[in-house]
Amino acid sequence: MTRLITVDDLAEVAAAVGLDALLDELIAALGQALATHDPAQLVTHDRTGFEYRSPTLGLVEWMPALDLGRRVSIKTVGYHPANPTVSGTPSVLATTSLYDTADGRLAVICEATILTALRTGAASALATDVLAAPDAAVLGVVGCGAQAVTQIHAISRVRPIRRVLAHDADPAVAGTLAARLAPVLPDVVVEVVDEPGLGRLLAEADVLCTCTTVAPGAGPVVPEGEHRPWLHVNAVGADFAGKRELPAGLLRQASLVCPDVPAQCLAEGEAQQLTADDLGPDLASLVRNRAEWEGHRARLTVFDSTGWALEDLVAAELVAGHCERLGLGTVVELQPMATDPHDPYHRLLSPAGQANRPTTQPTLTSGALL
Amino acid sequence: MTRLITVDDLAEVAAAVGLDALLDELIAALGQALATHDPAQLVTHDRTGFEYRSPTLGLVEWMPALDLGRRVSIKTVGYHPANPTVSGTPSVLATTSLYDTADGRLAVICEATILTALRTGAASALATDVLAAPDAAVLGVVGCGAQAVTQIHAISRVRPIRRVLAHDADPAVAGTLAARLAPVLPDVVVEVVDEPGLGRLLAEADVLCTCTTVAPGAGPVVPEGEHRPWLHVNAVGADFAGKRELPAGLLRQASLVCPDVPAQCLAEGEAQQLTADDLGPDLASLVRNRAEWEGHRARLTVFDSTGWALEDLVAAELVAGHCERLGLGTVVELQPMATDPHDPYHRLLSPAGQANRPTTQPTLTSGALL
Repeated sequence: MTRLITVDDLAEVAAAVGLDALLDELIAALGQALATHDPAQLVTHDRTGFEYRSPTLGLVEWMPALDLGRRVSIKTVGYHPANPTVSGTPSVLATTSLYDTADGRLAVICEATILTALRTGAASALATDVLAAPDAAVLGVVGCGAQAVTQIHAISRVRPIRRVLAHDADPAVAGTLAARLAPVLPDVVVEVVDEPGLGRLLAEADVLCTCTTVAPGAGPVVPEGEHRPWLHVNAVGADFAGKRELPAGLLRQASLVCPDVPAQCLAEGEAQQLTADDLGPDLASLVRNRAEWEGHRARLTVFDSTGWALEDLVAAELVAGHCERLGLGTVVELQPMATDPHDPYHRLLSPAGQANRPTTQPTLTSGALL
Repeated sequence: MTRLITVDDLAEVAAAVGLDALLDELIAALGQALATHDPAQLVTHDRTGFEYRSPTLGLVEWMPALDLGRRVSIKTVGYHPANPTVSGTPSVLATTSLYDTADGRLAVICEATILTALRTGAASALATDVLAAPDAAVLGVVGCGAQAVTQIHAISRVRPIRRVLAHDADPAVAGTLAARLAPVLPDVVVEVVDEPGLGRLLAEADVLCTCTTVAPGAGPVVPEGEHRPWLHVNAVGADFAGKRELPAGLLRQASLVCPDVPAQCLAEGEAQQLTADDLGPDLASLVRNRAEWEGHRARLTVFDSTGWALEDLVAAELVAGHCERLGLGTVVELQPMATDPHDPYHRLLSPAGQANRPTTQPTLTSGALL
């Protein structure tokens, strides 16, 4: 049987658990998974997919992970940057499927559009918690779409953020950020800055998040300029060949550039501007040995976030566990579980609703068919 | 919105269309897709996945296809050979997801366990229709599980099969084959042969299908021996490194060995025993230029079937089309389509059932949130 977890089911989980608590749980679960990550136990495939320009610029890609002995998780992601403008739908639309490795059945299919935003926020929170100044209060944000909301929320769970300086290439999107944040962060002051104000945003931020849909080749979106010596940057948007958000000078000044997935960051992230030798510890090492890296809190640091299947597995497991506990989601017989395993026609020829599970005794199986 | 097509929905399609007609439609649609296949328009990725021995021997793999400008299709397959014995569930459990490339949403998720058996039968029917003797009446089958049912049914749609000689390593499975075939092929005579009878099965068959779960390294399952000069073999089972069903001598005698996917057959199919130079036309070429290859009908031929994402795309599209026409399946808002695309929390914070689609006007979007 398969548990279907829709966006409304996820809303019920959020209502039952509380959105702050759910995000805290996700940050903790992801931190635990990273700190204990054993690549022989939790195996991930490189993200791959189809990119196209017809009927519109977009891609569909998949991010598989195996938790050996338990689960396979596959998140599939559509990324179509024109969606918000063209159809009012999110640019990222995703689902995560969990397969039981005892029998291969699809155990869970879960909405992952919102989960992607949450887990991306959680990853930035973990990097920020290790590397940012403990009293960081000013958060700069470049790109005010869906990811910005969870970046700001998640970072506010680990640092005492009081003020957000926000910029978006589309002033209308920047203009609604305060309203979108108000339900979860009523006391945070949002100040929108225009393009000439980007220098001030960079200069005043204790933490900076970049989460834009800048086109490949069109970056960076952050200027070169003055910044706090202790600035920590979460560079979230770049996940595509040629796409970058940070100027090379800022990256080169950093005392640490930490990738989530080194090879992927070198191919698609900010690290495209660097070489492997320039990279610091990956996110798992950063979290596992946090005492070692906290010494960089007084210096410029960058987290290069491109997304990792492990994060999606953790997020889907967390939500699926809540749904199971709370009796949420719809359990359906998507695949033929109650059937004669040797007869693909058993369930097609039994009247719907009358397809009783046959015994595995061959004679009785035949009897059920005749 | 996403259309969920369960096994019961598929049963309703079969009831509405008729199982013979559905299979005929699938054979025709697959033949059309193969004959017109343009690899720039219909792009497939290599099948890949996770194989493991814990908690049981099995694998989960995915087979992606892009129909440029229209759809991405991803079939995910679990293969756990112990399922029928351990839990009475099919060894293959699969689903196919169809994504709309206009916006990336998951448009359809469809049961594909039964569809996999049907499309594998349809592929064998197409190869058989080109290469087997026109009056082929005796069908040999080695391996009498789920795939055998659709192999026999599909081949009976293109050749006047009157008698089936059937062998399975498990006599209990062979013993129920007649009962499983009876609903669709009431006039076909099934004779079960034991292991010593395999020589006679090979000698008398006009067409032979091998569809076993023989372990890698343990094959072949067909002996060397006398056979009709015009024998056509559909070798369906081998799709794993080291797995083979046919003896090397039989393969080498064949006037044509036709792979479905040449590179995959050389890695996982019967063609593991051959080199690229030994291979004849692939299935698409065979179907496209059938007049050219029908000259081999009087000679020994082999179709090496390992499975292709194009087949799964065609099968899922056919069923999805029927469901849309007949109003079958359940349409759910799995992913947040009616939402503020810039606010991942919009649907989490709106009470379930009251989440009206906001206008894309920023000011009204804010209003809806406050």
